[in-house]
Amino acid sequence: MQTLETKDAPSPFRTRAEKMQDRADKREAVLRAAVRMFNAHGFHATSLDDVAASLGISKPTIYHYLGNKEQVLIECVTRGLEPLRSAAEQARAQAGSGLERLRRFLIDYARTNMDDFGRCMVRTGDELLSPASAASIRARKREIDATLRALIAEGIADGSIAPVDVKMSAFALAGALNWPARWHDPAGPDSPETIATGLVDMLIGGLAPR
Amino acid sequence: MQTLETKDAPSPFRTRAEKMQDRADKREAVLRAAVRMFNAHGFHATSLDDVAASLGISKPTIYHYLGNKEQVLIECVTRGLEPLRSAAEQARAQAGSGLERLRRFLIDYARTNMDDFGRCMVRTGDELLSPASAASIRARKREIDATLRALIAEGIADGSIAPVDVKMSAFALAGALNWPARWHDPAGPDSPETIATGLVDMLIGGLAPR
Repeated sequence: MQTLETKDAPSPFRTRAEKMQDRADKREAVLRAAVRMFNAHGFHATSLDDVAASLGISKPTIYHYLGNKEQVLIECVTRGLEPLRSAAEQARAQAGSGLERLRRFLIDYARTNMDDFGRCMVRTGDELLSPASAASIRARKREIDATLRALIAEGIADGSIAPVDVKMSAFALAGALNWPARWHDPAGPDSPETIATGLVDMLIGGLAPR
Repeated sequence: MQTLETKDAPSPFRTRAEKMQDRADKREAVLRAAVRMFNAHGFHATSLDDVAASLGISKPTIYHYLGNKEQVLIECVTRGLEPLRSAAEQARAQAGSGLERLRRFLIDYARTNMDDFGRCMVRTGDELLSPASAASIRARKREIDATLRALIAEGIADGSIAPVDVKMSAFALAGALNWPARWHDPAGPDSPETIATGLVDMLIGGLAPR
């Protein structure tokens, strides 16, 4: 038996929602291509011409969606910081001992630093940014560091963490968990989740036998 | 009573040893000025003209003593690696448990990463180097990593270190102890020695109470 389709042909005019989605998709494709090139070749060795060419578009199209090369970089770094900020917010709201909440936060922190935007965020030193952008990024990083220190202090207060030096421990944790942004091979055998958990549990347990 | 000096006037001609020392001093001054500028402004934002100007010399003088900008950078990175190589050699030769030797090595490692050349070595990513230089630097870093892993394995074998994952622990330690190259302020209140000892003892003890 044959079914006669009575559905109208789709309108050739896009709705406002479709246009917005289309714009967001294009912006995302440009950002994703740019961050991968920044990570692979470094900011200075990457030109927006290369990014545009990899997508079969022109450089003015990138300017249209994101702005100049520094603006593209800032957006990549901001995207790398966003999951850290959100993990910090969750860690502050959660129940559990200081150590339990810190552990969950650290695993999120390490995992997210291994994705494209996280890698770019960790690798982007102040010297690549204008003084104003560097200051703005530093302020956001300080918020995440403040959460890290607060969780350590809460753990010490509730007895779930040893009476360590809070500032020094926060630096040691951040350093150990930023490091995969430089060595982790996304094509390698270990998933970011496995690496994140392994690193965090080593930092919690320490090297000395218990 | 008056002493009559009979010493000859110094010769206006320098000895071969004096000339070699003079050359070494000048080379050192150029390297020291360059590494400080690389650390403060980044490799791309530093020109050999700036380095030369800071010493009141000309750019060809820098070419004469060290070569082009990449060669200056490679020499700075090599100088940053040298104390790590020497600490690794000592750690391998020393007596003591795996943990004791590892602890001494890690403190040296952290301390040296906070000096001018150490900071430059940690901050210099492969993307700043030619493929051949990057490969040569990576090979030297691998030797240091091999010592780190060997000391951890020896500590596990003699029972002074918990049965941790060797590779993962080496990454966590390296990350935590490279990190001061990015945040430590040489003009700040804490000495590299204090920071190095604090970080290493936190990594050995871990966060969880004992």
